Amino acid sequence: MSIACVGTGNVGRAWAIVFARAGHRVRLYDVDEGALNGALDAISRSVDSLASAGEVEDAKKLLGLIQPERSLPAALHGVEYVQESISERLSLKQAVFKELDQHCSPEVLLASSTSELAPSTFLTELEHPQRCLVAHPVNPPYLIPLVELCPGPDTSPAALDSAEALLTGCGMSCLRLKKEVNGFVMNRLQGALLREALRLTESGVCSPEDVDRALTEGLGRRWVFLGPFATGHLNSSTGFRGYMDMLGPAWRRLFDEMREDVTWSDTLVDGAADALAERYPEDAIAAAQAWRDKRLIQLNQHLNAQLNYKKD
Amino acid sequence: MSIACVGTGNVGRAWAIVFARAGHRVRLYDVDEGALNGALDAISRSVDSLASAGEVEDAKKLLGLIQPERSLPAALHGVEYVQESISERLSLKQAVFKELDQHCSPEVLLASSTSELAPSTFLTELEHPQRCLVAHPVNPPYLIPLVELCPGPDTSPAALDSAEALLTGCGMSCLRLKKEVNGFVMNRLQGALLREALRLTESGVCSPEDVDRALTEGLGRRWVFLGPFATGHLNSSTGFRGYMDMLGPAWRRLFDEMREDVTWSDTLVDGAADALAERYPEDAIAAAQAWRDKRLIQLNQHLNAQLNYKKD
Repeated sequence: MSIACVGTGNVGRAWAIVFARAGHRVRLYDVDEGALNGALDAISRSVDSLASAGEVEDAKKLLGLIQPERSLPAALHGVEYVQESISERLSLKQAVFKELDQHCSPEVLLASSTSELAPSTFLTELEHPQRCLVAHPVNPPYLIPLVELCPGPDTSPAALDSAEALLTGCGMSCLRLKKEVNGFVMNRLQGALLREALRLTESGVCSPEDVDRALTEGLGRRWVFLGPFATGHLNSSTGFRGYMDMLGPAWRRLFDEMREDVTWSDTLVDGAADALAERYPEDAIAAAQAWRDKRLIQLNQHLNAQLNYKKD
Repeated sequence: MSIACVGTGNVGRAWAIVFARAGHRVRLYDVDEGALNGALDAISRSVDSLASAGEVEDAKKLLGLIQPERSLPAALHGVEYVQESISERLSLKQAVFKELDQHCSPEVLLASSTSELAPSTFLTELEHPQRCLVAHPVNPPYLIPLVELCPGPDTSPAALDSAEALLTGCGMSCLRLKKEVNGFVMNRLQGALLREALRLTESGVCSPEDVDRALTEGLGRRWVFLGPFATGHLNSSTGFRGYMDMLGPAWRRLFDEMREDVTWSDTLVDGAADALAERYPEDAIAAAQAWRDKRLIQLNQHLNAQLNYKKD
């Protein structure tokens, strides 16, 4: 199959790797030709790192499937799926989707990587909106399987089915939202955590480093293989019902406090940024990102080797 | 050193393993003698599972350090630290701390495992409140290092220092709250996530299973080695300051929506419980907990083998 990746920032580049790794031909396009050239270098480095960890058999073959295109019509020629990953500006998204809609025949799926914009706001004035959807990954999608699919007002169930089949075939795990919601599922969950993290640090209860440790040395140890519902289920000898009976009232009291507005100061952000820059220097973020990717590869290998719980 | 563990539920039993693993003598007490006997069996099973994973060298020696006591005075005799893990009832906590305060000389540290009760509410009418604190672990503490220390109104910095030194010596990683807050850090963070999870599922955006997958196949993959601040830092080419400049406005909009009250129905809880019981049957929660502990042991071995990021 041929797939177009439109927009070659962090996310667009990562998608190109996902699709080419699954054997699809990828046509890569960016309105900024310099960005396009830089993307090819970055993709090449990421693929090399996957190959040296044994996650990609033939790096050269994979890279050979990714073809840069100098014009949008050329990039869209003959593709069956388009993954748009341009910057998060509403007017730009609207314009690009109009263009994609005009250039691609009605059976071509058009998916946006947006993490911020609700599909109803930019899937507007289209001839064939039924084949348009949001497919928002966690960065980087070639190392983190979850991708959330959010329909727009006119998206057909068949389009969602096709997108899910294609992405699942590429090793992704799809979470289908039953309706549109701001922030989708992923950013609402991580936003809720960040919101409380900002409240705790802004009010001086603990430092940003402490919050990070609360995850890496505490809560994250469970959440990487048991989500919040399963965690509750296993924290009670009578399962999730018993857990909510037991802790429901305490949660209600805490949840009431969480209705309070949260703000954050420049002082907090600067302090957190300075402390983080000590660990991960700002002039070497790319190196730290490469380290993060290596850790993710090794974590995935570890998780894949573990048995999931079954009764039998 | 001699340490008393008062209360032998899940948490008290786990603390006994933490202290004995570090070579301390543990005096185990529960007001319910049946619970005390059951606790010894449960501890023995947990220690065997640690030993078979190579995490404990000499199970027999470790178990020999844990001694059940039939009265509270006997349990407190000659100890330098008391870890209280009784049930979360305010009047009971108040009464037990009064008793501990009376029986233990002023230099003995008295720590509560409470996850719910603010120290100012139960560290009341004590002769020596300066040596009392909350030391709240993530369950089970012998597998998850983080423990949060919360001072009460009269807790001395020296007592917090001593508790931190002792717990660090037992392999724990201490997060010190600078002031009391309901839910402390850990339950506020996991509560914020659960709150949004309940909102998303109650409003029909996705299922509880979907939320669990959002963590295990998505967000949890990063949070197990990068907390939310570090995640933001590495998601921007200009570090955490750039991340908040770029995404701050979008977060503010989402955070505003999160001020809305969250409720949940019996239908939601029952549906989640039934689906979880399919995976982890309610009549075999103990077996699922043992599986969880094995996964945690293997995850810890994996994480300990990974290098942390350093500039040099």
